[in-house]
Amino acid sequence: MKKIIKNGTIVTATDIYTADVLIEDEKIQAIGKNISDIYAEVIDASGYYVMPGGIDPHTHMDMPFGGTVTADDFETGSIAAAHGGTTTIIDFCLTEKGKSLKSSLEKWHAKATGKAAIDYGFHLQIAEANEDVFKEMPQIIEEEGVTSFKIFMAYKDVLQADDETLFQTLVTAREHGGLVMVHAENGDVINYLTKRALKEGNTEPIYHALTRPSELEGEATGRAARLTALADSQLYVVHVTCKEAVEQIAEARSRGYRVFGETCPQYLVLDQTHLEKPEFEGAKYVWSPPLRDRSNQEILWNALKSGELQTIGSDHCSFNFRGQKELGINDFSKIPNGGPFVEDRFSVLFSEGVKKGRISLNEFVNIISTQAAKLFGLFPRKGTIAPGSDADIVLFDPTVERTISVETHQMNVDYNALEGMKIVGEPITVLSRGNYVIKNRQFVGRPGNGKYLKCGKFNHD
Amino acid sequence: MKKIIKNGTIVTATDIYTADVLIEDEKIQAIGKNISDIYAEVIDASGYYVMPGGIDPHTHMDMPFGGTVTADDFETGSIAAAHGGTTTIIDFCLTEKGKSLKSSLEKWHAKATGKAAIDYGFHLQIAEANEDVFKEMPQIIEEEGVTSFKIFMAYKDVLQADDETLFQTLVTAREHGGLVMVHAENGDVINYLTKRALKEGNTEPIYHALTRPSELEGEATGRAARLTALADSQLYVVHVTCKEAVEQIAEARSRGYRVFGETCPQYLVLDQTHLEKPEFEGAKYVWSPPLRDRSNQEILWNALKSGELQTIGSDHCSFNFRGQKELGINDFSKIPNGGPFVEDRFSVLFSEGVKKGRISLNEFVNIISTQAAKLFGLFPRKGTIAPGSDADIVLFDPTVERTISVETHQMNVDYNALEGMKIVGEPITVLSRGNYVIKNRQFVGRPGNGKYLKCGKFNHD
Amino acid sequence: MKKIIKNGTIVTATDIYTADVLIEDEKIQAIGKNISDIYAEVIDASGYYVMPGGIDPHTHMDMPFGGTVTADDFETGSIAAAHGGTTTIIDFCLTEKGKSLKSSLEKWHAKATGKAAIDYGFHLQIAEANEDVFKEMPQIIEEEGVTSFKIFMAYKDVLQADDETLFQTLVTAREHGGLVMVHAENGDVINYLTKRALKEGNTEPIYHALTRPSELEGEATGRAARLTALADSQLYVVHVTCKEAVEQIAEARSRGYRVFGETCPQYLVLDQTHLEKPEFEGAKYVWSPPLRDRSNQEILWNALKSGELQTIGSDHCSFNFRGQKELGINDFSKIPNGGPFVEDRFSVLFSEGVKKGRISLNEFVNIISTQAAKLFGLFPRKGTIAPGSDADIVLFDPTVERTISVETHQMNVDYNALEGMKIVGEPITVLSRGNYVIKNRQFVGRPGNGKYLKCGKFNHD
Amino acid sequence: MKKIIKNGTIVTATDIYTADVLIEDEKIQAIGKNISDIYAEVIDASGYYVMPGGIDPHTHMDMPFGGTVTADDFETGSIAAAHGGTTTIIDFCLTEKGKSLKSSLEKWHAKATGKAAIDYGFHLQIAEANEDVFKEMPQIIEEEGVTSFKIFMAYKDVLQADDETLFQTLVTAREHGGLVMVHAENGDVINYLTKRALKEGNTEPIYHALTRPSELEGEATGRAARLTALADSQLYVVHVTCKEAVEQIAEARSRGYRVFGETCPQYLVLDQTHLEKPEFEGAKYVWSPPLRDRSNQEILWNALKSGELQTIGSDHCSFNFRGQKELGINDFSKIPNGGPFVEDRFSVLFSEGVKKGRISLNEFVNIISTQAAKLFGLFPRKGTIAPGSDADIVLFDPTVERTISVETHQMNVDYNALEGMKIVGEPITVLSRGNYVIKNRQFVGRPGNGKYLKCGKFNHD
Ligand SMILES: [Zn+2]
Ligand SMILES: [Zn+2]
Ligand SMILES: [Zn+2]
Ligand SMILES: [Zn+2]
Ligand SMILES: [Zn+2]
Ligand SMILES: [Zn+2]
Ligand SMILES: [Zn+2]
Ligand SMILES: [Zn+2]
Repeated sequence: MKKIIKNGTIVTATDIYTADVLIEDEKIQAIGKNISDIYAEVIDASGYYVMPGGIDPHTHMDMPFGGTVTADDFETGSIAAAHGGTTTIIDFCLTEKGKSLKSSLEKWHAKATGKAAIDYGFHLQIAEANEDVFKEMPQIIEEEGVTSFKIFMAYKDVLQADDETLFQTLVTAREHGGLVMVHAENGDVINYLTKRALKEGNTEPIYHALTRPSELEGEATGRAARLTALADSQLYVVHVTCKEAVEQIAEARSRGYRVFGETCPQYLVLDQTHLEKPEFEGAKYVWSPPLRDRSNQEILWNALKSGELQTIGSDHCSFNFRGQKELGINDFSKIPNGGPFVEDRFSVLFSEGVKKGRISLNEFVNIISTQAAKLFGLFPRKGTIAPGSDADIVLFDPTVERTISVETHQMNVDYNALEGMKIVGEPITVLSRGNYVIKNRQFVGRPGNGKYLKCGKFNHD
Repeated sequence: MKKIIKNGTIVTATDIYTADVLIEDEKIQAIGKNISDIYAEVIDASGYYVMPGGIDPHTHMDMPFGGTVTADDFETGSIAAAHGGTTTIIDFCLTEKGKSLKSSLEKWHAKATGKAAIDYGFHLQIAEANEDVFKEMPQIIEEEGVTSFKIFMAYKDVLQADDETLFQTLVTAREHGGLVMVHAENGDVINYLTKRALKEGNTEPIYHALTRPSELEGEATGRAARLTALADSQLYVVHVTCKEAVEQIAEARSRGYRVFGETCPQYLVLDQTHLEKPEFEGAKYVWSPPLRDRSNQEILWNALKSGELQTIGSDHCSFNFRGQKELGINDFSKIPNGGPFVEDRFSVLFSEGVKKGRISLNEFVNIISTQAAKLFGLFPRKGTIAPGSDADIVLFDPTVERTISVETHQMNVDYNALEGMKIVGEPITVLSRGNYVIKNRQFVGRPGNGKYLKCGKFNHD
Repeated sequence: MKKIIKNGTIVTATDIYTADVLIEDEKIQAIGKNISDIYAEVIDASGYYVMPGGIDPHTHMDMPFGGTVTADDFETGSIAAAHGGTTTIIDFCLTEKGKSLKSSLEKWHAKATGKAAIDYGFHLQIAEANEDVFKEMPQIIEEEGVTSFKIFMAYKDVLQADDETLFQTLVTAREHGGLVMVHAENGDVINYLTKRALKEGNTEPIYHALTRPSELEGEATGRAARLTALADSQLYVVHVTCKEAVEQIAEARSRGYRVFGETCPQYLVLDQTHLEKPEFEGAKYVWSPPLRDRSNQEILWNALKSGELQTIGSDHCSFNFRGQKELGINDFSKIPNGGPFVEDRFSVLFSEGVKKGRISLNEFVNIISTQAAKLFGLFPRKGTIAPGSDADIVLFDPTVERTISVETHQMNVDYNALEGMKIVGEPITVLSRGNYVIKNRQFVGRPGNGKYLKCGKFNHD
Repeated sequence: MKKIIKNGTIVTATDIYTADVLIEDEKIQAIGKNISDIYAEVIDASGYYVMPGGIDPHTHMDMPFGGTVTADDFETGSIAAAHGGTTTIIDFCLTEKGKSLKSSLEKWHAKATGKAAIDYGFHLQIAEANEDVFKEMPQIIEEEGVTSFKIFMAYKDVLQADDETLFQTLVTAREHGGLVMVHAENGDVINYLTKRALKEGNTEPIYHALTRPSELEGEATGRAARLTALADSQLYVVHVTCKEAVEQIAEARSRGYRVFGETCPQYLVLDQTHLEKPEFEGAKYVWSPPLRDRSNQEILWNALKSGELQTIGSDHCSFNFRGQKELGINDFSKIPNGGPFVEDRFSVLFSEGVKKGRISLNEFVNIISTQAAKLFGLFPRKGTIAPGSDADIVLFDPTVERTISVETHQMNVDYNALEGMKIVGEPITVLSRGNYVIKNRQFVGRPGNGKYLKCGKFNHD
């Protein structure tokens, strides 16, 4: 059935104008002044921004970590995402050494199928440099629609890959059209600092931050960027948090290398002092890289504004405070790493970014949606409002004032790390491929309606 | 009368998709799949890119220089521009010390009125820091629609303004919503080097380049950027040619300052060796800053790609070889500075940029049109294809192969500095506010049809 | 008559060892273990450092400024210097437009002759680029023993030279073995900021600092460094105060350019808040460039340690608070610029530098003496303790604790900008060419004993 | 017995002057004009420079590598060193995982005792981070006089240590007064590139260079510098070869970190094309890091001049072409890594550095001797000419012209990598602790006369 969104202010990464949008067969058909169609349902968007649905390039749904599993699975997580204005997530599929990449993907498909309420794609972790992996990778790109590969430079003895693995992944990605992603922290030094802190009896959550100083993120980011340049490949640095890392990315980019960076809402609005909260509450803010000194926030905003960083991911990886975070009550290194941000990513960037004059409305759409679509091979299917694109559309009221709270959030987790934060702006209605998922703030979609998206090859043009 | 452009591939700074465009009352009314209207003229755009008309932010029409006047005036210049796919030019209005800014503007209006075949706006030169000028500037912004102000840091004893003038202009621009433009070369040192060269009997055209080394552009660019930062103002560096200048702009931007840069097609495809041509032919390539060592070309392309530079202007300032350039036959410092590029700017950037894989199609549109519209307060009226925007549209055939030549060009000048250059792509049909200016490669417009555009205040968001 | 300094710890820019020093005919004759000579006077240096006398490359004695003249002349100034461990000063000879350089030098010789109690040399200001000046400069270098030339980039309409003058001085210096010195601040912008502050009624001393922000020093320093590189010449930046300037010097040096920098004790230990002192006391701290934010102190120490800055000058330019500084009581721009530091330069660097672990003892000697001797063509006559060198020697007690005060200082000025500062270390006995100037803290020399030093050509090897 | 060196030109890192040197009891007793002593042997040094003996901080004598052992042992190596003007070497003691550090040192003492003709000290390799090693290290510093510890970041699966080992060594060194040395190349990526080259059939010597690109040295250098900064420790980067590495060191230093760098004569005068010599001759130039593109030579000279690099080591590690280098005739990765430079280090730096105007004579002494003494705790015993210092003295004729050749060299190896190089300057007579080792170019010393030197703790002041 057809729909017409009338009188909204359409915003893309470039444009802003008032017009109507005609939707048919899950796609945008036309955009224009005074469109009418007697067969179409009319949605009044007066006073609203009509924007492409958010694309969250960094989620961890239903993910095992340190003996537990994230509180949100693809059902609860994708519904919360939709509430927040996000219509596509790209989730990280973990792999096991010794098993085929394909088998890991199958496991991840099983987690998502029948549960996701919005469309989704996958990134794939590469754990070790062995012949089988690099033989399989091209097939994965060609046949499975997975084109982005994640290397952990931290979590020694668990997820950490060595530089040879990273470099070989870069070379293979280059040859076959993949994009390499890194979690950039020097895991070796973190390992030493962690052991030393625990030996000295320093077990509280704040030591999570103190044993992962920003210099180690800067170092690893620079290392990955230099290896990328040498391999003439392409790199996407996830969750950039600090000056040291931004500098490395900026330098590589200004030399013409294909190095990209993502930050997360938490690094833009929270800081390291949150880990010092009493009664173990600091554990709610334990994830990696850790929250940093407040001075980094302006640097990250600046980098988003200038284009040194391109995207914002939620790094959604939710664990309950009770029962899960508490696993580390006597040892910060046992606190499950992660926080719940898939729902608030969109609104926080709007409220803190656009409303406070740090980025423009066009830049907002670029960061929250368009750039991720382009980097991960989903454009123009996703990431814009244009004839022919999927009708993934958010009607956003830019004036509503509200307060973030666990009381009202939709995520399946017992706290909100942004509790009490005042926000301006709210997604009112959200369409996924032309179908209502959120209608007047209520979830009206269905788990399982989300489709798996095959990502295209990396194409930096 | 209505028009429908059918079956073209619409390209904006963000999007690329196939759809039809409905034009009515000089504006774009709708864009969509299979638009039909029995009252509309249908233009078949199959196989063509449908792009916003080019915006050339840097022209000098009908401009006096060293006792002569440019070969192109607003009539011949604007027709040539239209042939080349450009539908808006922003020309530099020169001022005289001791006279009001308004009186200079009136003179420039007189040059353009009744002659321009496409729409146009003005920048205004600021020559000296005196109270009257800074009192008048806010009025000019508010009432005259001129919001960009040009300072020459070179041409000592002629156009050069001192740093106090530059700084005061920056302060005033900041307070009233202006954008300051600089010609960034250290005119003092050039003055010394020029006098020394002439004294040593070095009079040939190549000494024009040798007495204006790139270090002096880098120095002046850095100086202007630092003063901008101090004034918390905004700066647009015209005709950036070299590594030294790009580095200064990039550094300022990465610190979050509002510093922007333009380069020109000539610097992307020509180099300093052209000034060494025998029989005084080097004079055809004399303009300021001069052509540089070839190694700078890649740096400029890189800077356009990475967004360190935002726009491309033609710096069109045409003088005939016979009779005009020849004024300097015995003294390079008397050669009128300037070259003819308003016609080829668009196609050269497409052919050398997009076709050769240096920039993407979206980046092309951004650089050739959108960014200039945004920086100079013309967006969204100009610079995009969206409902409500002026129907300034180019139908561009990306496959035609042709050769640039004085034999076939439209500019009123007796040589072409790109003579013999092979180009892929050609504007076929060009609309200005929905009216044909170029139809199947023929000029069908009318001098005087171009309207004066009031530029909006600087709004960097 | 011969002298033997026995049992001291001899310190040079490289060495530290215990030995005796034999002096004869104003020169050091030998250094060794257990030197004895029955004809020699023995000076016991047990417990003392035996160091080359300090060289102060930056003083203004008997200098006119804004209608008044400095409180210290060559007699009082040189005696104070000697008390402080300094045995050579290089003073700035000002010039007048339209007069010969030689005539200005003669005027300066007249000021010093018969008055100076220690040896002295001259730098010469270059005010404007005219043919006569650049014709005379080589003669000055060859015949007058003046090889360093000072350009003011600030003090618009008074001392400020334009970039053409600076560049031509650089070129001439390069050809004839001179060293160009700059006072690096952008005088144009300072002029604007000063006029604006006064117009807004901001007349207090603190506005002296606020109208000369560090960005303007950074800009001018970078400009001078770039012009030096282009001229393949050599540059000495006087009184470097801030991060912005240090960065420019460091960058030039790491590219291999011959750019040198001096800082002053006042910038290492005082900061901008001193200008906020009530009852016009801030005027005591008015000089240019102004005192900066405290964060710059560590950067300057760092730069001395790493060799990015080479020397420390006093910029001694003393004006009484009563009667002189008071000229600006209603207008900060009328406060005579300068402060009294020739006496305390040596001890402050020792106490704050060596005693606090910021620089080593060898680095101290290098900075306080050796580097200045090498840069200004006085080495090895001055600047070291070695056979054949002038016996300019300080016996320094590194353990004495004392307090700087106007009550006890020797300078002819009615306040001390370091009043109350605790210092460790004191010059006990000072020899100039083997003759006592200071003996057990008492002046025993004679005005007029100081000789004029012809400086050698610049020789950076 | 006493000696007097008469009429020479004494050169130290700071001074240059003509005087006599009195030697007694292995030490310098006095320096002065016209020293006489009827009991002393007089050595006429007219026309010669009298300089402190060279200190070579980087040798590998009698070292096993890939199934063979270096051609020079402590006897032949130290005699060759003395011929070349070097009076102290600091050799690298290798360790074995699982064995105590002390036991490795004992092995190295056994190699040197009774053989070395000049004084020597040791650096100690740290292979892995285990508790025993870090418990033993402080004892080694306190009791054994070994204070510098070497980490290999390359040679994967053989010598390479991980970042955790490096970091823990930095922390321990900091606490106990050690200095950490790194061989900085990314061994992981080299491992991949080497395997790939061999798999593709690329076995010739040039592939040694092609599989170890300079980017990998830059990366590892930057990584080590950043970890040093984080540990607030001190780092000495051995054998720096390229722009990428120099930049990292310079940046760390200009931020105030205690990071030092050494280059080697081979990188200053040879380049990568030498590895392309036919008939496997390229193998003569195989060592790590490899020779680089010629453009790096100027950068290294510049860095020595500016003080960004402090020392020059020979990295003497000699293997015969016949029988040893030939082990890799079918596989470049099996060519023993190393070249013979202990003999020519001193003269090459003089001839190419001082004679060609790249560094001054004082800088020469600083680089060839003084800085190494200061960094490794041997100053002022070694590294200068001053009363109280060991009489390690070179009489150097700066005018002799000669040609380096295997025909005439003293090293026990069948080729010279500098064969045919024209050199100006030659050590004529060399004293070690006042005793002749070389007299009029002849070796007159005795193996075993060299003493083991206990190095002092790191003391950067
Ligand atoms: Zn991560
Ligand atoms: Zn994550
Ligand atoms: Zn211009
Ligand atoms: Zn122009
Ligand atoms: Zn000054
Ligand atoms: Zn001064
Ligand atoms: Zn090595
Ligand atoms: Zn080695």
